[in-house]
Amino acid sequence: MREYVHLKFDEMPKFWYNALSDLPFNLDPPLDPETQQPTTPEKLLKIFPGPLLEQEINDVDRYIRIPEEVLKEYAVYRPTPLIRAVFLEEFLKTPAKIYYKYEGVSPTGSHKTNTALAQAYFNKISGTDILYTETGAGQWGSALSYAGIKYGLKVNVYMVRISYLQKPARKNLMNLFEGNVTPSPSKKTKVGRRYNDDHPGSLGIAISEAMEKALDKNNAKYSLGSVLNHVLLHQTVIGLEIKEQLKKLELNPDIIIACHGGGSNFGGTILPFVPEKLEGKNIRFIACEPESCPTLTKGEYRYDFGDTGGFTPMLKMYTLGKDFVPPSIHAGGLRYHGASPIVSALLNNNLIEAQSFSQEETFKAAKLFAKLEGIIPAPESAHAIAGAIKEALKAKEEKRDKVIVFTLSGHGLFDLPAYI
Amino acid sequence: MREYVHLKFDEMPKFWYNALSDLPFNLDPPLDPETQQPTTPEKLLKIFPGPLLEQEINDVDRYIRIPEEVLKEYAVYRPTPLIRAVFLEEFLKTPAKIYYKYEGVSPTGSHKTNTALAQAYFNKISGTDILYTETGAGQWGSALSYAGIKYGLKVNVYMVRISYLQKPARKNLMNLFEGNVTPSPSKKTKVGRRYNDDHPGSLGIAISEAMEKALDKNNAKYSLGSVLNHVLLHQTVIGLEIKEQLKKLELNPDIIIACHGGGSNFGGTILPFVPEKLEGKNIRFIACEPESCPTLTKGEYRYDFGDTGGFTPMLKMYTLGKDFVPPSIHAGGLRYHGASPIVSALLNNNLIEAQSFSQEETFKAAKLFAKLEGIIPAPESAHAIAGAIKEALKAKEEKRDKVIVFTLSGHGLFDLPAYI
Repeated sequence: MREYVHLKFDEMPKFWYNALSDLPFNLDPPLDPETQQPTTPEKLLKIFPGPLLEQEINDVDRYIRIPEEVLKEYAVYRPTPLIRAVFLEEFLKTPAKIYYKYEGVSPTGSHKTNTALAQAYFNKISGTDILYTETGAGQWGSALSYAGIKYGLKVNVYMVRISYLQKPARKNLMNLFEGNVTPSPSKKTKVGRRYNDDHPGSLGIAISEAMEKALDKNNAKYSLGSVLNHVLLHQTVIGLEIKEQLKKLELNPDIIIACHGGGSNFGGTILPFVPEKLEGKNIRFIACEPESCPTLTKGEYRYDFGDTGGFTPMLKMYTLGKDFVPPSIHAGGLRYHGASPIVSALLNNNLIEAQSFSQEETFKAAKLFAKLEGIIPAPESAHAIAGAIKEALKAKEEKRDKVIVFTLSGHGLFDLPAYI
Repeated sequence: MREYVHLKFDEMPKFWYNALSDLPFNLDPPLDPETQQPTTPEKLLKIFPGPLLEQEINDVDRYIRIPEEVLKEYAVYRPTPLIRAVFLEEFLKTPAKIYYKYEGVSPTGSHKTNTALAQAYFNKISGTDILYTETGAGQWGSALSYAGIKYGLKVNVYMVRISYLQKPARKNLMNLFEGNVTPSPSKKTKVGRRYNDDHPGSLGIAISEAMEKALDKNNAKYSLGSVLNHVLLHQTVIGLEIKEQLKKLELNPDIIIACHGGGSNFGGTILPFVPEKLEGKNIRFIACEPESCPTLTKGEYRYDFGDTGGFTPMLKMYTLGKDFVPPSIHAGGLRYHGASPIVSALLNNNLIEAQSFSQEETFKAAKLFAKLEGIIPAPESAHAIAGAIKEALKAKEEKRDKVIVFTLSGHGLFDLPAYI
């Protein structure tokens, strides 16, 4: 029978959890690409509003209150359900108990709104009128466009050209939510004008275009959908709700899994559980990424640029190099060459594990899940399913009824052509 | 704050409600188009399996048990949530309490799986190997394909050609769930061969093709997604769950609303409440349809053919005439020229009301709902939203805190181009 753990609105977290205050090590600071010295607040304030910059560097406060205005918008779709994958368990004949946290119920279909709404709010109260951002397949652009309506900000999205042409549904979703979408590279920026009209584009170029625009106007800022500390902070609503839901089930998690692209849904999921692990509890955190963009499993842990044009601060992170161009894979949301500095540091300190999966394995997991559980997962999220299945089969071998929890970060209704 | 009324699996209805046993009038029987006499069971058994035929004519049993095998598949996504539209209420500044029953959580995104699963099951146990059906924009075809996997039946779908070309996403969904899709008119049937290769197609032609195929083989049957009594029977899970959920809220509904195309989601929603109305309770049932296909508001109540080729029994229903061709509107699911005989009889006896809405009004309602409540509705379902908004504004004028419940029959993630 379907087990479905709901939280009432009262039980929704009213605070984000700030992992920076608990990490047993210091993070290396972002560096200014021009000086190779720690980047200055003045420079960062040109692209981020004060409150978000504060959140980026605050390593003192353990919990940061979620503003009422953000809670109200979270309430449209949160708390999200924790669902027991009974049919998957049955099929795998595993003694393990598998639960998934389903973020696909969000208005734009993925966990991205958890940070888009917060970022739009903090920008609004700081006097920002326009937000610039980039998007690959469109998940992030959709989320920020939606957030823009909620708080009355204009949202301009630079969309990687090949995705702009291949994914009209996400483009339409952005337009429905009144986002302005420009295929990148475009003629609107110096960076963009370096490329031919038919260049397929890349995330690195799109980030550079969005940042160039944001730096150009006083009332415009830039917004990033993953990687940064404040983004992971916002995403901790995921892990905090999972904690509450597991409490109701009187269960302790043995393994927590999420897919990993930039680190936002993975970080949001596991960070609230890190203190327990540091206190000695036996929990494994597994980040699942594509073999074709193996940032955590094959990258180097060093400082690197965040974009092609060199506008962004350099971050200490696992990286495949800023010029890495992943093959044309479908899991568009996991194509970034770098990773969250927090997640990277945790990996470097052996507090988390990383595993990579082939596209074949991932799609197989996605189709199986769709047929058994009735939800079509996003290709990105399907990496987590592949990881969960792997651990569930291990549990079967070991004859142990482990509790496996994974975050299903989004639905794949716009990605059907990929699955066929 | 978001109110979200969930039922546990235990509280899910274990029986369908059979309105035929309670209606205060007899329905006129289906007629054989060749003889214009009541159609014989033998003829009907060529297209429907015994159990479904039984359900079609049973006017004795008040409740019909849902088989365990069907309950198990319902459990993948049911019970579905009843959600209070707090943000819509706020925006409209209405004292009314608005609740929506959200069927869009189903594996194929609409209420259609409620009957697709039941029909596939009853066909399977009756020895059917292959199901033939038609589909317009693809909602029904997707649902039946999904059901086909669950019970091990081959599903062949004749899809109206213009939709086949315009809605690749739904075609992909059918393929993901292993349905075979043929654009209609096709060269595979006598009926289809009458038309040119470039004919846009219609539901009437597609039904004829599917039926011709089903009549051709002993182990093949035909499956209809709306209109018929057994379909409405299956859909009563919607209304029965709403009853339970309203009980938990200790509320009585004043107005119950649903969109109307063939009558399945409307019937499924309101039929369980009809006995209360017959006992004197003051409840209004409002069917909302498009102005461009005004079957209930402008049709004639008489016997008519169900399809172009004259294969289907003639039904006593509100109809625009079997040759009615609606203008190219986006709400593909509401284009049928006829209506459920049960719903038609209720309308003729003034037990329900019907209202029509322009496409402009409907889309406006859809976009408003998407922005406020965070769910993108199917264009069909948006007619119900338009109806609910209309009644909520009336309640504001009358200063009355009426309880308005509507069924949101599906999500519109595949219909975004229509909204732009």
